[in-house]
Amino acid sequence: MPQTDGTTSAFDAATAVTRTGDGGLVADLDPGWDVGGGVLNGGYLLAVAARAALAVSPHPHPVALSAGFLAATGPGPASLAVTPGPAGRTLAHASVVLAGAAGPSLTAQVTTATLTDAPPEWSAVPRPSATPVDDCLAPDEVAPPDRGGQVGLRTHVQTRLDPLTSGWVRGRPGTEPVVRGWLRLADGRDPDPLALLLFADALPPTSWATGRYGWVPTVQLQVLVRALPAPGWCLAEARAGEVAGGWLDEDYRIWDATGRLVAQSRQLARAPR
Amino acid sequence: MPQTDGTTSAFDAATAVTRTGDGGLVADLDPGWDVGGGVLNGGYLLAVAARAALAVSPHPHPVALSAGFLAATGPGPASLAVTPGPAGRTLAHASVVLAGAAGPSLTAQVTTATLTDAPPEWSAVPRPSATPVDDCLAPDEVAPPDRGGQVGLRTHVQTRLDPLTSGWVRGRPGTEPVVRGWLRLADGRDPDPLALLLFADALPPTSWATGRYGWVPTVQLQVLVRALPAPGWCLAEARAGEVAGGWLDEDYRIWDATGRLVAQSRQLARAPR
Repeated sequence: MPQTDGTTSAFDAATAVTRTGDGGLVADLDPGWDVGGGVLNGGYLLAVAARAALAVSPHPHPVALSAGFLAATGPGPASLAVTPGPAGRTLAHASVVLAGAAGPSLTAQVTTATLTDAPPEWSAVPRPSATPVDDCLAPDEVAPPDRGGQVGLRTHVQTRLDPLTSGWVRGRPGTEPVVRGWLRLADGRDPDPLALLLFADALPPTSWATGRYGWVPTVQLQVLVRALPAPGWCLAEARAGEVAGGWLDEDYRIWDATGRLVAQSRQLARAPR
Repeated sequence: MPQTDGTTSAFDAATAVTRTGDGGLVADLDPGWDVGGGVLNGGYLLAVAARAALAVSPHPHPVALSAGFLAATGPGPASLAVTPGPAGRTLAHASVVLAGAAGPSLTAQVTTATLTDAPPEWSAVPRPSATPVDDCLAPDEVAPPDRGGQVGLRTHVQTRLDPLTSGWVRGRPGTEPVVRGWLRLADGRDPDPLALLLFADALPPTSWATGRYGWVPTVQLQVLVRALPAPGWCLAEARAGEVAGGWLDEDYRIWDATGRLVAQSRQLARAPR
């Protein structure tokens, strides 16, 4: 998707997949999309995997993507092994295995179809009341006070956290593992289904909202894309349903600038100590 | 899991996987677990896929399973191609492809680990008020009035629907796509993580609650198993979040007899016309 000025967006460049001479697909994973420690963001990797599935699909959009995170993925060259499944007029299936120098690190099932922005017939997922974007925290306020330094992800995904769920940023954690914020690509590219895959893992961990600032590695993540998003900011809200036995789930709901539900995700992650 | 009388439960027999001479895994899919039209229930197939993953795992329980339903699966011999992923002390990954005579029909990523029944550290998913099981609908009242005949699934999964969400069974559909009911294996086998995979797709479609009685094929389904269930009935509640563009999501939450959350699932399905 070229920008209106004819340039390629940083997101499109960083998630590009290329067909090699022998028919395989490869990507050059960009070190700038990290979440610290040289580890790339899960949502960024989902967008790369979805592009690989779209390369073999008659349909233009990911509607459902389920990923297993086998290992942390670092930057650099990666191969994308795609196994096409049945493809019909309504939808197509594909399995994707992303492998870097250290071997396979992500497996994904991707269902592709054609999404629209037609209004829902029925919805029980209204956009919550949220602080207007201009009254939210500044884009550099996305980490607990004792954590220095921005991670690469935040330079690419502009994140304006709702102060109502972000006391922890200023040293006042709450009791609920809920984080809400407005998201958009920092390069000005408007959201589309691929960007929604990125956004579905782009908020800080919900456990941070309760003052537990450890690492929260994703084990499995499913994203459903429900409609084409309108241009502008998306509002994302992440909630943990239960923390138990060293595991937690995180549920994301994402609404576009018109208030329309455009994506849902759920992940199982390891809980921080 | 032998029954207390030493016999094998119908569920365990129907989901058994066997290693062949060449090291592969096979199953004989039981025609008795159908949902009509010779199509087997999705949750039944998840349990079979999970058994295949457990056969190569050092861990005893599925904790996360994401499946893509490539095509309807009928009864008969099936192969289970398992690709083990990384396995550590906490968890192990595997990919499973189930194929019958017509080719691959289900792909699944399965994460295995060791679950406990230790109480949660935090939970926002309390069991809802539900009608006590003895005051719920009879086990044969699980279909709209114009649908004759029991499907095989119901002879194996005893289903007592809550009358509060089941007006449609008696010709009075409601406005909310919500279905709630008590579930247990009809052979008396107590629930375990494998049975929870079955239960995560065992209620009637939520669209039936609103009087739309068409076929609702699952496209992708993720199940998270959160704890070992206590013996006895489980309560399951399914809710559609949004119906739009020919798609709907269904969210399941399952609590055990003590009221503990033991599983969550979300699926994307095609909406009935």
